[in-house]
Amino acid sequence: MNTQTAYADLVHHLQRCSDIAGTLRLLEWDQETYLPAGAMDSRARQIGALAEILHTHSTAPALLALVDELANRLDELDPEQAVDVRESKWQLDRERALDAALVRERAELRANARSVWIQARHDDDFALLAPHLEQLVAMERRVATAIDASRDPYEVLLESYEPGLRLAHLESVLGEVRAGLQPLVARICALVERHPYPASPLIGDFDAGAQRRFNEHAVAAIGFDFSRGRIDESAHPFSTTIGSDVRLTTRYDPRDLTYSLYSSLHEAGHGLYEQGLAADARGLPRGTACSLGVHESQSRLWENQIGRSHAYWEQLLPAARAAFPALAAASVDALVLAVNRMEPSLIRTESDETTYNLHIILRFELERALIGGDLRAADLSGAWREKMRELLGVTPADDRHGVLQDVHWAAGEFGYFPTYTLGNVYAAQLLEAAAREIGDIDELVRAGEFATLLGWLRAKVHRWGQTLRAAELIERATGEPASAQPLLRHLERKVELLARALPGA
Amino acid sequence: MNTQTAYADLVHHLQRCSDIAGTLRLLEWDQETYLPAGAMDSRARQIGALAEILHTHSTAPALLALVDELANRLDELDPEQAVDVRESKWQLDRERALDAALVRERAELRANARSVWIQARHDDDFALLAPHLEQLVAMERRVATAIDASRDPYEVLLESYEPGLRLAHLESVLGEVRAGLQPLVARICALVERHPYPASPLIGDFDAGAQRRFNEHAVAAIGFDFSRGRIDESAHPFSTTIGSDVRLTTRYDPRDLTYSLYSSLHEAGHGLYEQGLAADARGLPRGTACSLGVHESQSRLWENQIGRSHAYWEQLLPAARAAFPALAAASVDALVLAVNRMEPSLIRTESDETTYNLHIILRFELERALIGGDLRAADLSGAWREKMRELLGVTPADDRHGVLQDVHWAAGEFGYFPTYTLGNVYAAQLLEAAAREIGDIDELVRAGEFATLLGWLRAKVHRWGQTLRAAELIERATGEPASAQPLLRHLERKVELLARALPGA
Repeated sequence: MNTQTAYADLVHHLQRCSDIAGTLRLLEWDQETYLPAGAMDSRARQIGALAEILHTHSTAPALLALVDELANRLDELDPEQAVDVRESKWQLDRERALDAALVRERAELRANARSVWIQARHDDDFALLAPHLEQLVAMERRVATAIDASRDPYEVLLESYEPGLRLAHLESVLGEVRAGLQPLVARICALVERHPYPASPLIGDFDAGAQRRFNEHAVAAIGFDFSRGRIDESAHPFSTTIGSDVRLTTRYDPRDLTYSLYSSLHEAGHGLYEQGLAADARGLPRGTACSLGVHESQSRLWENQIGRSHAYWEQLLPAARAAFPALAAASVDALVLAVNRMEPSLIRTESDETTYNLHIILRFELERALIGGDLRAADLSGAWREKMRELLGVTPADDRHGVLQDVHWAAGEFGYFPTYTLGNVYAAQLLEAAAREIGDIDELVRAGEFATLLGWLRAKVHRWGQTLRAAELIERATGEPASAQPLLRHLERKVELLARALPGA
Repeated sequence: MNTQTAYADLVHHLQRCSDIAGTLRLLEWDQETYLPAGAMDSRARQIGALAEILHTHSTAPALLALVDELANRLDELDPEQAVDVRESKWQLDRERALDAALVRERAELRANARSVWIQARHDDDFALLAPHLEQLVAMERRVATAIDASRDPYEVLLESYEPGLRLAHLESVLGEVRAGLQPLVARICALVERHPYPASPLIGDFDAGAQRRFNEHAVAAIGFDFSRGRIDESAHPFSTTIGSDVRLTTRYDPRDLTYSLYSSLHEAGHGLYEQGLAADARGLPRGTACSLGVHESQSRLWENQIGRSHAYWEQLLPAARAAFPALAAASVDALVLAVNRMEPSLIRTESDETTYNLHIILRFELERALIGGDLRAADLSGAWREKMRELLGVTPADDRHGVLQDVHWAAGEFGYFPTYTLGNVYAAQLLEAAAREIGDIDELVRAGEFATLLGWLRAKVHRWGQTLRAAELIERATGEPASAQPLLRHLERKVELLARALPGA
């Protein structure tokens, strides 16, 4: 077959898989947003049917043969086409390394452990989960060995979420973060001990309908395109891409504006990335997000770096006052302080922008030890407490507020957590680079002029899809290899702001 | 293969098809309700992909072989299982009669004619559409001949919508309707000429949010189960079943309460039927609606027979007054008159309960002549005007208000229209039979006691699925073969009501 014909055939196969995957995501989105409670049974069947159909299509012998054939003819393809073949080949080779029996066994282990986790968390009974975790760890080691027996198994697992990431690089970046945060956290503790936080103006009476309109305004203002997107409500916020539209969700708490606003900005950051991918390459690797870490950099850039800045609230306050009588007398300073409360705490998802990274480092160090065989799952609860004390100076009274708080490990996801802090690292580095090229970001934000920054992110990050791996993407966008220093500088400024803002400090 | 094993295998195949079909309907529902405008392109791709996957699964050689094999062993199956095999076989035999080239050609003709129809209607240019209609008619004749060359081709087409319906029976029923309506329509014309209708209290100021809550109340009151259903908004009302949930849509016009209320009651009637099908046979013929005519009988029973009755408004008025200040002074009599305005008119979808059936008879007579070769498509515009004058005494000034008003023929649907009047016929007959068994329906309605009637419909109609064909279902449920007399009695009472209600009459 002619190379160009074969490539066109590959595109057809991949786009068909993408159409099915988008449909599957619609089934899932609808389940979280609009599905009547009594229809869960048939929805589970529909999701199962589509997942099986997607698997059949994405592992069709004709597709595998095409990818293998084209991978031998990369020099006959133009560079963009070669990206689609290279990334398809990389993905397929990983999948083919696992035989069907292993995949089935892994899926069963995970499904089983997930439901045990719900029970264990409910009963605060880690011992119930421990043997399942032990099996999941053994399984992930087998998976890593099957994919590439010559490398550290944890590095192989990392690549499920962050293709091309080297363990040495991750260790170095997280090591910088760990070292840099220790004095910052000590400073935060000292500050907070002397000066408790004042009441937050964002806790009060915030009509849900008004929050809905306000969030749509805030999200549209940073550039989210509602002609190709929506916001709806679900128990847990998420974003998903269903073909050429991107759907965000949030939850409205009429006593608290913080939650819906910052979860919306976070999900909108993911959505802006998806909306910025090359539309003419939808369904192909070139039109697909680079990695979870890069995805997270976009959500955290808008949520934290932009959304929690003084400049952001300067431009938002008029609209916020117009929407909510409760904010009539609130000052920018008070609002900025309210959304930047820092303090060591037990729960990752409720922690602040600074200490959050220590929650991740804790998980990274523990899961590495698990996969490396240096820690047994049975000892995880104790190890967790010890590391919490070491990193954050607090220890949970029970496992529900400790090792049982996250589902990731019970879902078999080892190597996932680091992408959250990688996202923070990339976000800060990208924003420093953007400032060098487009000027003072705060000034743009204060003027409500978000399009310049979004345009820069589109050009430097979004439009590349999987053309570049994350390390290369970041280096090309910022002129430097990924480094924790911009994040640390950003967090130091935040702590300075805290020191100035806390009354009497 | 053991017969029971083969049957279990058939169930598996059919349920898989049903899961895919439900997913396809979710894609379509979402397109009409929540899809952002800029995502139409990828939605069209997803719908195309799922339709193709559904076709592949529903014509899989393994499935066809199973059905053929089981059809030879009906006596080894229990009666319920035999229904699933019998109806699957009937459906598959019809599909297999058409070769792939014919199916493709037909789909292309239809798609093409539909877009020409949009243009023709916009330009009021029937001549543009006529040659396409000619081709569609020829195609449907070929289809009918391929399915069964020994029968009247129009009867074969009818069965696409109403399996088992005999043309002679339909002619007899519609003949009764035609004859019975002539004096009624003359009476209506005489009444209306002397006494114009007063202003409707349902035209005024009706907040869309209040309409939404009011409609949900009205629909829940008649028994629609919101734990397995929803109401949303779309440009055109419809109902659809997505696995075990049923979704209705309507449209809220803040100047007019009639539209949303009666379209909701209509769609809820369809929804109640779907919710009443045997849940343990979902995806199988036993758990699938009997025919379009029976489906329409359920929507029209609740919309017209119940929803436009005096008793219905007696029970609804307190809630209506509480919801809408505009109805503070409205009387039941005025409301009933407002929702029973009768008068010959040009547009089928805007016509009243009585004259509606003449719009259908007109279409039936014309499409029968087209398929029978007694009328050329080119002559349809003139034939339409002539028959409008004959049946309704009005003639359209242009084809937009005449032959171009409906999409059905341009979509290749010949034999569909009669199911609307069959629905009216069945509805009236079912309600008379219900009254004989459960007592005065008006009394139950007046008390808001809808569950007894719904229970009767569940037992006599819903739960049977495709166990019985429509003719047998109606005869068993009512004790008599389908007849137009109950409908004519119902409409006579309506006209009497009109005669009493029109001021000064």
